[in-house]
Amino acid sequence: MSELSVDHLLGIKYLKPEDIQLIFETADHFKEVINRPIKKVPSLRDITIANLFFENSTRTRLSFELAEKRLSADVVNFSAASSSVKKGETLIDTVNNILSMKVDMVVMRHPNPGAGVFLSKHVDAKIVNAGDGAHEHPTQALLDSYSIRERLGEVAGKKVVIVGDILHSRVALSNIFALQLQGAEVMVCGPKTLLPKYIQQLGVKVETNLIKALEWCDVANMLRVQNERMEISYFPSTREYTQQFGLTKKIVDSLNKEIVIMHPGPINRGVEITSDVADSEQAIILDQVENGVAVRMAVIYLLASKIKR
Amino acid sequence: MSELSVDHLLGIKYLKPEDIQLIFETADHFKEVINRPIKKVPSLRDITIANLFFENSTRTRLSFELAEKRLSADVVNFSAASSSVKKGETLIDTVNNILSMKVDMVVMRHPNPGAGVFLSKHVDAKIVNAGDGAHEHPTQALLDSYSIRERLGEVAGKKVVIVGDILHSRVALSNIFALQLQGAEVMVCGPKTLLPKYIQQLGVKVETNLIKALEWCDVANMLRVQNERMEISYFPSTREYTQQFGLTKKIVDSLNKEIVIMHPGPINRGVEITSDVADSEQAIILDQVENGVAVRMAVIYLLASKIKR
Amino acid sequence: MSELSVDHLLGIKYLKPEDIQLIFETADHFKEVINRPIKKVPSLRDITIANLFFENSTRTRLSFELAEKRLSADVVNFSAASSSVKKGETLIDTVNNILSMKVDMVVMRHPNPGAGVFLSKHVDAKIVNAGDGAHEHPTQALLDSYSIRERLGEVAGKKVVIVGDILHSRVALSNIFALQLQGAEVMVCGPKTLLPKYIQQLGVKVETNLIKALEWCDVANMLRVQNERMEISYFPSTREYTQQFGLTKKIVDSLNKEIVIMHPGPINRGVEITSDVADSEQAIILDQVENGVAVRMAVIYLLASKIKR
Repeated sequence: MSELSVDHLLGIKYLKPEDIQLIFETADHFKEVINRPIKKVPSLRDITIANLFFENSTRTRLSFELAEKRLSADVVNFSAASSSVKKGETLIDTVNNILSMKVDMVVMRHPNPGAGVFLSKHVDAKIVNAGDGAHEHPTQALLDSYSIRERLGEVAGKKVVIVGDILHSRVALSNIFALQLQGAEVMVCGPKTLLPKYIQQLGVKVETNLIKALEWCDVANMLRVQNERMEISYFPSTREYTQQFGLTKKIVDSLNKEIVIMHPGPINRGVEITSDVADSEQAIILDQVENGVAVRMAVIYLLASKIKR
Repeated sequence: MSELSVDHLLGIKYLKPEDIQLIFETADHFKEVINRPIKKVPSLRDITIANLFFENSTRTRLSFELAEKRLSADVVNFSAASSSVKKGETLIDTVNNILSMKVDMVVMRHPNPGAGVFLSKHVDAKIVNAGDGAHEHPTQALLDSYSIRERLGEVAGKKVVIVGDILHSRVALSNIFALQLQGAEVMVCGPKTLLPKYIQQLGVKVETNLIKALEWCDVANMLRVQNERMEISYFPSTREYTQQFGLTKKIVDSLNKEIVIMHPGPINRGVEITSDVADSEQAIILDQVENGVAVRMAVIYLLASKIKR
Repeated sequence: MSELSVDHLLGIKYLKPEDIQLIFETADHFKEVINRPIKKVPSLRDITIANLFFENSTRTRLSFELAEKRLSADVVNFSAASSSVKKGETLIDTVNNILSMKVDMVVMRHPNPGAGVFLSKHVDAKIVNAGDGAHEHPTQALLDSYSIRERLGEVAGKKVVIVGDILHSRVALSNIFALQLQGAEVMVCGPKTLLPKYIQQLGVKVETNLIKALEWCDVANMLRVQNERMEISYFPSTREYTQQFGLTKKIVDSLNKEIVIMHPGPINRGVEITSDVADSEQAIILDQVENGVAVRMAVIYLLASKIKR
């Protein structure tokens, strides 16, 4: 397989296992590139990419921007705060205008689930979904799996538990799809109030006891607690959450094995994970960040190669 | 004529017909460039351009930024929201500081009419007015005329009606100047409360009935309704405006001819224009956006060629 | 001496006189470069620099960004307003994440004194302090001394008075260190309420009468009045300050000699300095801005040359 089966990266659920394989092999090459003294390749000199962030996101935007610049693409940034979106313009008008300026690819974060899919049907550019509401965040799931593959050799057959607020998490949903596609076993673990009702239909194990979940797994992906949500509308409170689902050194040491610990960031130290665990050898949190640039370079490169020129 | 008669683009009223001709011929070249696979030229590698936006404007800023990058200029952006303007610094101090950093050209949007003219008298850099209050928005008028020329072959002799809030519109004023300079006939159409008192002195026809205006014209330029203004202080309300001045498919079909339909964006769909009209073959709204980049490349290129090096 | 004695630029107090000498000689070269038609050098093509501004600063950020671009570095910008800092992430996590994206150098402005020092101990990248609370602003002090050297031939032996709010000023503190290191004599002048208690320990002269201070000095560096602070919590009010410490043409003309007048910007015209003085031949305020780019290029270039490659 030498090209993706899709024209856009809208969600993991649209990918085939071979697509993920191709992205990872391409990312292997780019990871080698970004660890050279000269971290750039001239591949996309002829491509203009617009980063449209209708929600704030420092780390994801920076990771994409670095990936784009290291591919030598021309980059323009657009954030909702300073945009005509506030003037009541429709999403499709905003993007059509940007495309009329001869933009080849759009990386978009948007609060509405399905915003990327909608866009891809109406505009003539490659779309990369950088997070659409509580729906999908496909590059995060790809970099997570890439990091598991890097640490453990392969994803197939591994047992991965995702711990936290599954209900509101696009990271969780994209990870479930990606892990299953690659033959991993997936469990979700969290308070019942933060599990979606349709969780049974996703083919994952469900566990509400953290210790049991950790005893089962090879890899634990600790989701970020959304403080602002917890306090107001959900049981448990942040404090109760930490007591029941926070990962501490004591818990990690009590296991009869060494598990791999992941976190999509930004970390609330002392809430979902303590500092000693986050900074331990078992944690691959900063590898995830580093791999994010390589994986995004791969996605952008592979989609750009499908642009008619 | 091989160079502009002016050193800055402060307003259409300072241009000669030959300047517009030169800008259009140069834009023809750049339009061809931006439709190539490699959309860049190395022309302005030695030029640094500062985009100073004292008012928010996504589409104009993006259009200028793309134009500058495709000319290979170095670009720095400055927006009022995060600037020392808030610290009480004068405009001229802000700009002098930026110029001391060896900036060759300033593209400026500012809420005060005449801000660009003031600046050009006091600083040693080429100034491009990207909108100064309700005064002028010369690159918008140039791209509008360029788009008429592209669709109809020439601007001279054409009948153009500008529909909407003429009173507060720098787009209207710059368009009136540009169209007259090129030998077009201009009419303005809108509620009396949104026409300036000095309108008679501008040498344009005035019409308050949309159907009559459309029957007269070859081209209708539908201005954006500023919702925030309409609701509060002016008769009519947005709803009344739409009933009297909104362009619908039914109205367009009732005409005995095919007119060209323009809009400077962002569109309020269903207010000044319905979606079926905005997306029809007669509308050249997205051509205007595309041409905006080429016309701005031409303006910047021609002004840069007058910098002493 | 061909390289800096330090691995980071955290504050003037960590530098040796030879470091300043090396920075100035390197800046001489870059000042020549930025006055050429092509203002760029390809030196840092292989370096990625992140500008992390946790406080707003138009002029300092622009100056650094231009310095970086003219060295051909890849640049990513990060401002607190749109960052995950708001999500409760720690400084070190934010920066570690950025470094995992293979950033070689961090230029940081932060409200907390010592933020840069803290960072340099925990992360593996070169750090440039672009202002840390009321502590240090070393590149400002370097460009100030560079500008004195340019105008008066050398800094050693010169008498420099710093006038204004010494208590809250990182510019004052870094200037005191830099000037003393180069053998200049330093006086501070301002209302007693705006002098720090530890001022005697800094080895500077103290004067509360502006005329006497000016009669003593060769150079007067007029600090910006922080209006927002003056009105609320300190005696004197802005008006009283201007009467006692504002520099006017009348005062300048009354001196028996010609002094050099400096200001770090942005200027409050008519408050700490009148327009006729700020715009006079004796003022080197815009030279300071121009030299800022050259000095920052020198600092970045010299630190980058210490990166293991």
